[in-house]
Parts: sequence; structure tokens; C-alpha cells
Amino acid sequence: MSGNTFGTLFTVTNFGESHGPAIGCVIDGCPPGMALSEADIQHDLDRRRPGTSRHVTQRQEPDQVQILSGVYQGVTTGTPIALMIQNTDQRSKDYSDILQTFRPGHADYTYTQKYGVRDPRGGGRSSARLTAPTVAAGAVAKKWLAEKLGTTFIGCMTQLGEHAIGFEDWAHVPNNPFYAPVADVAYLEAYMDSLRKAGDSCGARIRVVARGMPVGLGQPIYDRLDADIAYAMMGLNAVKGVEMGAGFASVAQRGSTHGDSLTPKGFANNNAGGVLGGISTGQDLEVSIAIKPTSSILTPRDSIDSAGQAVQVQTKGRHDPCVGIRATPIAEALLALVVMDHALRHRAQCGDVLPPVHPIPAQRGD
Amino acid sequence: MSGNTFGTLFTVTNFGESHGPAIGCVIDGCPPGMALSEADIQHDLDRRRPGTSRHVTQRQEPDQVQILSGVYQGVTTGTPIALMIQNTDQRSKDYSDILQTFRPGHADYTYTQKYGVRDPRGGGRSSARLTAPTVAAGAVAKKWLAEKLGTTFIGCMTQLGEHAIGFEDWAHVPNNPFYAPVADVAYLEAYMDSLRKAGDSCGARIRVVARGMPVGLGQPIYDRLDADIAYAMMGLNAVKGVEMGAGFASVAQRGSTHGDSLTPKGFANNNAGGVLGGISTGQDLEVSIAIKPTSSILTPRDSIDSAGQAVQVQTKGRHDPCVGIRATPIAEALLALVVMDHALRHRAQCGDVLPPVHPIPAQRGD
Amino acid sequence: MSGNTFGTLFTVTNFGESHGPAIGCVIDGCPPGMALSEADIQHDLDRRRPGTSRHVTQRQEPDQVQILSGVYQGVTTGTPIALMIQNTDQRSKDYSDILQTFRPGHADYTYTQKYGVRDPRGGGRSSARLTAPTVAAGAVAKKWLAEKLGTTFIGCMTQLGEHAIGFEDWAHVPNNPFYAPVADVAYLEAYMDSLRKAGDSCGARIRVVARGMPVGLGQPIYDRLDADIAYAMMGLNAVKGVEMGAGFASVAQRGSTHGDSLTPKGFANNNAGGVLGGISTGQDLEVSIAIKPTSSILTPRDSIDSAGQAVQVQTKGRHDPCVGIRATPIAEALLALVVMDHALRHRAQCGDVLPPVHPIPAQRGD
Amino acid sequence: MSGNTFGTLFTVTNFGESHGPAIGCVIDGCPPGMALSEADIQHDLDRRRPGTSRHVTQRQEPDQVQILSGVYQGVTTGTPIALMIQNTDQRSKDYSDILQTFRPGHADYTYTQKYGVRDPRGGGRSSARLTAPTVAAGAVAKKWLAEKLGTTFIGCMTQLGEHAIGFEDWAHVPNNPFYAPVADVAYLEAYMDSLRKAGDSCGARIRVVARGMPVGLGQPIYDRLDADIAYAMMGLNAVKGVEMGAGFASVAQRGSTHGDSLTPKGFANNNAGGVLGGISTGQDLEVSIAIKPTSSILTPRDSIDSAGQAVQVQTKGRHDPCVGIRATPIAEALLALVVMDHALRHRAQCGDVLPPVHPIPAQRGD
Repeated sequence: MSGNTFGTLFTVTNFGESHGPAIGCVIDGCPPGMALSEADIQHDLDRRRPGTSRHVTQRQEPDQVQILSGVYQGVTTGTPIALMIQNTDQRSKDYSDILQTFRPGHADYTYTQKYGVRDPRGGGRSSARLTAPTVAAGAVAKKWLAEKLGTTFIGCMTQLGEHAIGFEDWAHVPNNPFYAPVADVAYLEAYMDSLRKAGDSCGARIRVVARGMPVGLGQPIYDRLDADIAYAMMGLNAVKGVEMGAGFASVAQRGSTHGDSLTPKGFANNNAGGVLGGISTGQDLEVSIAIKPTSSILTPRDSIDSAGQAVQVQTKGRHDPCVGIRATPIAEALLALVVMDHALRHRAQCGDVLPPVHPIPAQRGD
Repeated sequence: MSGNTFGTLFTVTNFGESHGPAIGCVIDGCPPGMALSEADIQHDLDRRRPGTSRHVTQRQEPDQVQILSGVYQGVTTGTPIALMIQNTDQRSKDYSDILQTFRPGHADYTYTQKYGVRDPRGGGRSSARLTAPTVAAGAVAKKWLAEKLGTTFIGCMTQLGEHAIGFEDWAHVPNNPFYAPVADVAYLEAYMDSLRKAGDSCGARIRVVARGMPVGLGQPIYDRLDADIAYAMMGLNAVKGVEMGAGFASVAQRGSTHGDSLTPKGFANNNAGGVLGGISTGQDLEVSIAIKPTSSILTPRDSIDSAGQAVQVQTKGRHDPCVGIRATPIAEALLALVVMDHALRHRAQCGDVLPPVHPIPAQRGD
Repeated sequence: MSGNTFGTLFTVTNFGESHGPAIGCVIDGCPPGMALSEADIQHDLDRRRPGTSRHVTQRQEPDQVQILSGVYQGVTTGTPIALMIQNTDQRSKDYSDILQTFRPGHADYTYTQKYGVRDPRGGGRSSARLTAPTVAAGAVAKKWLAEKLGTTFIGCMTQLGEHAIGFEDWAHVPNNPFYAPVADVAYLEAYMDSLRKAGDSCGARIRVVARGMPVGLGQPIYDRLDADIAYAMMGLNAVKGVEMGAGFASVAQRGSTHGDSLTPKGFANNNAGGVLGGISTGQDLEVSIAIKPTSSILTPRDSIDSAGQAVQVQTKGRHDPCVGIRATPIAEALLALVVMDHALRHRAQCGDVLPPVHPIPAQRGD
Repeated sequence: MSGNTFGTLFTVTNFGESHGPAIGCVIDGCPPGMALSEADIQHDLDRRRPGTSRHVTQRQEPDQVQILSGVYQGVTTGTPIALMIQNTDQRSKDYSDILQTFRPGHADYTYTQKYGVRDPRGGGRSSARLTAPTVAAGAVAKKWLAEKLGTTFIGCMTQLGEHAIGFEDWAHVPNNPFYAPVADVAYLEAYMDSLRKAGDSCGARIRVVARGMPVGLGQPIYDRLDADIAYAMMGLNAVKGVEMGAGFASVAQRGSTHGDSLTPKGFANNNAGGVLGGISTGQDLEVSIAIKPTSSILTPRDSIDSAGQAVQVQTKGRHDPCVGIRATPIAEALLALVVMDHALRHRAQCGDVLPPVHPIPAQRGD
């Protein structure tokens, strides 16, 4: 495959550029017979949408999704579901300057060197805008998983720049622009305001969880469930690190502590993050990702031009000072796509296996 | 694909169980015309081999590789290269007990629930022994990459359990059983000895680097170079975390610091870890992975049996007290396989692109 | 992959239903730097378009293609090329009757049984209308192949129902609605008129040729060039047979006759149809396909309804009395897609192989 | 994928050369829990094996298969099944002459030009010997399909050179070396004897049938069941044509005749060959293939050498005068592999679909 298709059986082929006529995707392999409308998809798109608080890019995009195929009388038919989102807020300007220089930390340089040409309008293909079709596809996967397997997805921010964010309650997450699981986000707001004034940006750490997981998903040796999760997450713009369960902290753990005990009432804890040997245990999937600071900042930076000469680059325009702020629904969508694909893969090979041990219940604190 | 094949164009299909007649792989898509012999592959297998120090499993396996196809008169023909390693040291014993219980932190439970059956001999398919074919395939990729593109791979241990390991010199790496880049490893030896006596295990952090990288490898949006690296690394037994470049530290960085400046003499630093927008920059690839402590330990643990009843499990036999000790050559091999696959994918699509900017040199400290 | 994506490196993901809002495809893997506009694609779409003579369906569809992505300032960027064709002539009617019965020879029954649901509007997904995106993608492949490798594609009808059509000259092909290589098609017109009056339909045989082929395309053992051609052609609606070169006639040939002699001036003939051992010889690819008669006919037929009861089915409306009439440009497109994909696959693996023997020229009569 | 892997979910990766140490394959994706032993596979290998009558190559190969992995205590575990067949009868000789010339009709020329190098020993990778692993994998698929779905496979020869072979009874097929469904094969024996004396070869036509097919297998648009059958069959050495059902005869049929009527008791006939719209109808799959005459013949032929100069080539040694004679079990295996793969693909997407219409029974004459 050529790089813009995600998944093996539930596949998502992504297309579009930030300022082209439209962006979208084609979902192939969706099981037939599921009720599906644009409204089912729009909710998650609205969660990811720009322009909803002063802490994100002020670009105004309704991100209205249109189903072009694969649904008849409100029900999936098993044929490809094409989703299209028209780009509406494309400021027309002269891009010739931008084409001549490369923002540090940005894909400008690598796209140019790889392809020989690049679309500079709003970052072209490398724009985080291209995560919208992923979110749309994820909404379809989420719906099927919730209805058929009872699996649901939830995420939150656990760190913003230098500020670690404690966990209070999932209920807070929808009530602030950061997806932070805390009641009071004033310190985060102040932090973002100061960053914006300084013309700078920061990173974030996001946690994403799948609950109600079936046991047995994942294809060892190579297409392990956790391997495909890592692929999905690291493939998200600006991600520089991925952890499952205890993650990097497991390095300093002992085996006697790390290995989650099994009891008749379930696993005693979840250092594994819900995966053992590449296969889901039935516990919650626990994933954590590191998002780097946005590279498009007002602060001038050293760079080179297309002739290889030293220049200074300063990025004006509408950019997220922390792309991590809108990352939570995207990470949820990616996790849902991985689980969906493996649910179908598992059914293909092991559809008639009856798990010999009564699946032990997941232990959930939070 | 069905889970046991790695890669898109340079594919590795892995087979075998720890105590079956043989393990191995089929490499498909290797370019023709490259000199290749068993000796070219054996070197890396010997680096991964068990039984070479008192800190690893005492199982004695020569891991002698045999080329079954794809090479004629010492030269690759472009047809599949089948590699086979016979299993020699299989202690025969009664596995019926093992089949009835599940080691905490181990794949016993998940294999059983997924497939309904499992091969319990030495961990069967979930054994770390199955990394040997990956290492063998990686050696083929390394050879081609070194000869054609000048790309080389190196790795070391940067943390063992609680002990962070400072970087002194790559030259030390082959001189100690830990792949530690330091002259004096007495404290690591003592640490391992105490762990072994305690019947416990620990984790490790491994760093792996690709040098002499071409610019332009990687397929955005989904099959990014870093996404495929994360997939490869998280797919390795016991890995719980993957970082590129600054990794999780980038969360607390500012954009003005994180984004690597470009200068006519090269990038000023390498927070990116050699990838921007999913495409290689030409800088070194810098990858770091977290390996959890071994789950097979002498210390008794709470678990359940196949009837779901509470039991105590204690694992005797020959096990690595830290699987991270032998992980360095495996991580190198996985990185080489990803780079190899993307080198061919890039040539397929962009084989006639001339990078418009003279590639700027990689800056290398270490 | 999930069935609606064609190709390995130059991939085409098809979406849409006959009477949905739009049909189209996403082309992934197209090399960057090629000039491309809608006009380059429209020409072949117009050749396939319905309503252009009295011998094809009278549905009026302009089949106007729109490029949604992957092209910037008239040049391909190496990112996915999304093509969309809006459906305009969708007669609204009540489909509940159609949903209850199954046309003999049609996909009504199999779609219903496979998916449990189906879109009955104009045949839904099983409509030959869905070949339009294939033709559009084929036009992109044709352009690259012509410009880079000098490979071109041509096709004609060689039989219409009972009437074998002799070969006079390729020049006649564009001058009649049948793509027949003969000057006088009055007998074919009369034949079609009589069929239409009888409320019946007929089949056709189409020949399609690739000229200026490079030597060396094809991946033995399984993904042979001819295997992928057979896959492509048999996957076209209504095709029931595929031949390469001498095809079924080779059964009665002797080896001393069939094997094409090599001479310093080229192959002496082309029984192979341009492929030996699954790899292109450099001779013309010669493919012949059998297209069955249209199943949607006015003549009443025995069938069953969704309750399994006997009924009579008669298909009114706008249907091609011979789908083979418009099949020539589609078969050309499919052949181009296969060759394009294999050209990239070959470059990936063997991009630095210099064919040891000076390629011998193709012998072309016609 | 790189050309030597067959299938999407039930994958077969083939390796080996005619005179290398071993040939074999890795089957991935086989459902767990099926009883499997070498004996289950050996039967079909013995049917394909050389040296069993005077009408085939006299090379003596026991083709003894060995299971290297994926089976524990006689049951498949869901992990890759590696199968190996050692090559035993490799006459050692000097191949330098053979490397310098190209047999007309053979892959010598194309392999050389594609890869720059080739293994000349017994045809290397292009030898029909490499169909043995396909047959072995097919035996595994056949076993699962028979046990789970009641689907079985059968084939016969329907033409040998100029001699069409009438159908008498399937029971005759195992009783003669040609797989001919007739009692008296003396005329075929005489024909082959005369050919052999003449130092020439002939082609054959093979029919292969799947019975007890489930309705609903196949993935439109591109991965249709018939498309994948055509791919499989055309990918078999020496095949030049493939037909489904009425095949090329359907060109001259009318729609009123061709379309198989549905009745409450089943389809009235089977012009479709068991596939409509790319999806199985539940009727028998009916496939017919054309096999060209062997290219390795004693009769001298015009060719060129590696310097491009005219030479005469005469092939001595042990060759099948008609490769079609041993093709029947191979075609069965290929058909089984396609059906197996689609059975799993169908279960993945539509595993919970209940076909709304009670599947109508297949009508079987023969």
C-alpha cells in the first residue's frame, strides 16, 4: 500500500490538502447493516474543530461532513463509505515566499526533498487539518464497537508544557478547552495566554483509554495490538513518544511488581495497559502519547532557503500554540480504528473460537 | 495480511515456535545482485544468541542459520530468501501443568483466550526466541543499506532497572554483555547478580540509531517513517514505550527550543530524531525504547488456573532476568528493516526525483 | 485490504453507487512532478460515457471529473489524487419492488445474500457505472507510462454476439460506436437494432494491447504480470474469460510452434502475448476478454422473490443491450493500471539492475 | 507485498528453487483448532508428484512434506504453518552453457533481464516444481473448507493437445495419469508417446470445480471472487487463458439464454459458473484453464545468446511433455486457496449477516 491507507480490513484511505477544495476519506470494509448518518460523525468532528476557543487556531472551518456512498436509507451497505469535508476558510495569499524557506521543526524541508514539489498552502498535506478525516472514520468505528462489543473510548490531557495535570474526574473533560480531567483550568489558560504573547508554543501529553475491550485482539508476531497502536499514535502529527500501560516507568520496575496478577475477580492492576504478548487481555487499553510543541511560531528562527543560504523564518498567521489541545479526540479515533481493524481480523481467523477460560473482568479505578 | 509478515516491499514472514523443529523467516523483495552468505547473517545472530554470559538465559542454542533459497553462487537472485534455524536445545518435559496456569505479565492467558489452544513448550510462539529470524532478516537489510546508501545501525543500553547508564563511548558497547556504552560495568553485573539471587527481574531502556540516512524516506500520512518505527519497536517482546528524538521530554519544551534550526552546515540539533512530517530529514534516526521486566521469575505470583481458580505460579527453568540485555541487536535489526522497506518504497514512487535542495549534512555528536 | 482497492503501489480506491450523490476514487502512490489536469482524464471518461449512440444506455451523464487533491499548480505532488464525478441523471422512483426480486444473471441476489441489505437504485454498487472511476484512474496511469516509458494502450472489439469482427485497421476504431477496427459497421448496427427490438442482449469479445512495453515487469511467483492482468480483467463487470496471447488456442498448439523464437531482430511472433514466466518480454501485451450479454433485459425471465417464491422478472428502463460496446476504454484503463503498478514495483526492487542483454525489439504486425 | 505471497488473510508465502536445498511455504492466518498432520497434506502432493507415469518428467522426487511450525499435538495453533519439502534428485551438472542462451517460450530471458542474474539449475525459481508448496497449502485449505463449510474441490482434463476429452464420469479421473474423466485413455497414451518420440510437446485444458459453495463470498468491486480465481489460475505456470462458467462461449449467447433463471428449487443452469457480481451464488464454481505446450523440448529452436547473437537451442533432460497432465491437483489447490481466503474475508466483514433469502440449492448435473 502507498502510505495513505490505514488498516488491513477496516481501511481508511485519506485524501486532501489544507487549502484544496476538499479533504476526506474512503472507509472500506465496514460491516453492513449499521445505522449511520452524518450526525453520528459530526459530533467528534466538532470536538476536533478549530476556532472553538482562544487557545487554538482561529481558522473558522465548520468541518461539515458529507457521506457520498456506502449508506442507503440510513444503513451501511458494506460498500465503501466515502466522506467529504469541504474546505471553506482558505485565505488566498501569495505562497512563493513560503516555498523558498523551511520552518524549523516543520515538514516543509522533508516534503520538498522527497517529492521535489510541495503544496505550501496552509502546510498542504502535512497540515494537522488532515486529521479530520481520521476523526470522521474513527466515529464510524466507535459506533460499531460500542454497539457490537460494548467497547468505548475516552481521553484526556495529562500534561501541558511544564504543567502536569492531575486526574480528578473524567466528567471535567468536556467542560474545558484542554480536555483536562480537572475542575479548575485557570492556570492552564494563563499559561497559554503567556505563551501566545511570547510568540511561542508548547507540547502536551495525552492519555487515551479503551474500555470494555474483548479479550483476544491482536496478531502476533508483528501485527500486535500494541504495535499497531504505536503505529497509529506515532503517525499522528507532532507525536514523539508512545507508551502502553506503565510505559517507560516499567524500566525501573521489578518483574514481581510489574506483572499484573490474575485473580478470579480480575487482574489486580494494569501495568500491561491491556495487552500481553501483543493480544488484548480484556483490561482497558491504556495509551499515553507525547506531543511536541508546534513548529509554526511567531518567534524568528534560523533556517535556510531553497538555495541553501541562511535565512530567518517567522511564521505569522493562524496556528495552534499547542496542537496537543485538539489531539484528544484524534487519539481516541486512532485507537478506535486500531481496535476495529483487529476486531474484524480476529473474527476472520478465530470467529469460531470459544475462549476456554471465562474472561476475567477488567478492574477499573481510572 | 495475517500478522506474521513485516514490511510492505521488503517483507519478512516469520515462523516457528521456541521448541518446535525450527524457526525462521522468508524475506521477499530483496534486490538482486547482492553478495550474501550465511556468515553475513550469523554475526548479528551471535550477538543476540542466548547463553553467552551469566546474565542471560543459559539455554544453549548455536542459532546456526541456513539459507534455503534466493541465493545462487553467493549472490541474491531477487527471489525469496528463506532462512532456517534449527532448534537444538529443547528440554523435553511435561507441559500439562504449565498449560493449566497463566504467568502474570506473560502471554499465556491471551494466547489461550484468543486461539483456544496454545503451544506451551518454552513459551511457544510468544517466546523471545522468535526474534532470531527478525535479527537474521535485519542483517540482510543492513548489508544492502550499508552498501547502497551508506546507512549503518548502532545501539546501546541507556538504563538497566533503576540504573541510568551514562554515555561514554560507542567503542565500549561490544566489550560488555549489556551493550552499555561505558567502560566499567561492574555495578551492572552486581545489580544483575542480586536480582538473580532474589528470583526477580528488571527492565531496560535501549537506544538505537541509524546513521548516514538518506533524506526523504517515509510515506505520509499514515505510513510515516516514525510510525513504522514505533510499530516495529512496540512489536518487540516486552516493549512498553517508544520515543523518537526528544520523545516525552518534548512535552515540556517550547517550540522555540524544540524545532531544530537549519543552517547551511546542517541541522543545529536533533530533537526531531531524524524525522519531520513522517519523512526522514537526513539526520540520524534516534529511537529509544522501554523494555519491561521479564515475567518469568522464580518469585511466586498470584494467578488463576484454566478453571478460573486462584493459584500460585512460580517459574523455574532458564529465563533471562532482563530481556533488555539481548535487545540491542534486535532493535537495530528492526530499525534496519523499517529503513530498508521505506528505501524501496521511496524508490518506487520518487525514484526519479532530484531533491531540489542540496541535502544538508547531518550533525553528529553522539 | 477490503476489496475496493486496486494495486499494490499505484493504488486506486473506488467508491460510490450508481444513484448516490457521487462516485469516484482515490489514487495513491502516483509519482510527483507530472503535469495533470481534469482535461487529461476527461478524454477517456468521454469515451466510456453513456448516451453517446443509440446502441448504449440512454442515461445522460456528463461524467465530469473533479480533482479534489494531489495536484498543485497543475502538477502532481505525490500525495493522494482524489477524483470525484457527481451523479446527475438519477431518476427518482420507487425501488421497493426491485428489492423484492432478483434479475437472473444479475448481482441482485448475491449482494442481498452477502450483505443482508442492498442499494437497489440503478444497480447500486454493482452497476457498470462504477467503472468510470477506474477509467479516470487509468488515464492518470496512461499519461505517466506514455511520458516516462513510452508505453501506450489501444483496444478494439473483435466479436459482437455471433459476429466475429475481422481486423482491418486501428484507425477505424474511433469512428464507430463499437470500437470495431473495420470501416463498415452497418451489419453491427443492424444486429444491435434487431436485438433491441427483441428486448434481448448479447455479449462481446474485446482485445486490448499495450505497446512499447519495458522488459522485466512482473513479480513471480504469484503476482505475475499476466496473473494481475487476469485479475483486473475478470474483475470487470460481465467478463467471463481472459486470454493472454494465443490463449485457449495454445492448448492445441505444439511446443515447437507455440514458443516464440528469439532472433537478433526480436521475437519471431507473439504467442506468449508479451509475458513469459510472469514477466514482460518487451513485446506487446496481448489480452482478449469475453463479455457476457447484459442481464437487464426486457424479455421476461423466471426468478424468485425475497420470500423464495417463483416470479417473473422483466427489466424496463435504460440499459446497455451489450455492455461490451463501452468496454474497450475500460479494458485499456485496467491494463494501464496493472502495468503502472508493476512499473513501480519493478523500480522498487530492481531499480538499479541493468538488463544484461540488449532488449530485443518488439515485432509488431497488429 | 512482494510477489511471492498469495492471499489476504489466509496467506501463503512461497520459497525455493528447483535445485536448491529445499522448497516450501509459510501459511499464515489458518484458523486454530483444526487437526492437521503431514499425511493430510501428502496425499495431494503425491497426486502432483513427478515420475509417476511415463508421460511426465522422470525426475524422482518423493516430495515429502515436513511441518516445521504452527501445529502442536496434531492441532493447528493459529500461528504460521511452515511447510518444507527437501529437494533430493538434483543432478549436478555444468550450467554455464544454459546461462548463455534462452529457451523460446521459457522464462530464461525474462528472469535474466529483470534481475540481472538467474539460477539456471532446473529452471530455478521458474520451475513448475514450485507449484508443490502451493499444492501443500491448498491441502490445508481444502481440509478446513470441507470440515467447516462442506466445500470440496475436484478437477479433470477436458482437452489434451488437439484431442477434446468428453465427460463420462468423475470416477474415472483417479484411474489414469491424465486426470481424464473417461474410461479409455489409450488414444491419449498413444498421442503422448508420439509426441515424445517427435521431441515435441502439447497443451491441455483443465476444468476445476468447487462444490458445496456458500453464498456470499467475494469482495466487489476489485477483489471479486472470479477476479481472484483468474489471478490464481493465470499465475500458474504455462496458463494462457481462464474461463468462468460459459466463458468465451457467453459472447455469442443472448441475455435471455445466458442469465441463469432462479427457481424455488435452485438455479436452472450455471452459465455464471457460480459467481454473479463478483460474489458466489452458492452454485458450483466452474473454472476452465488453457495450458500452453511445454517450452523445454528436444526439437531445436532459434534463439539468441546473452550477447544477442543467433543460436540454436535444444533442451535435453527430464521435462514434462505436457505440463497440463499434472496440473489438475494444482488448479484444485489454487481454487481452494481463493475460496479459503474469501471465506475468512467474508466472515470478517459479514460474520453477523443472516442471508435474508433461504439459500437456494445448487443444481448439479456435472
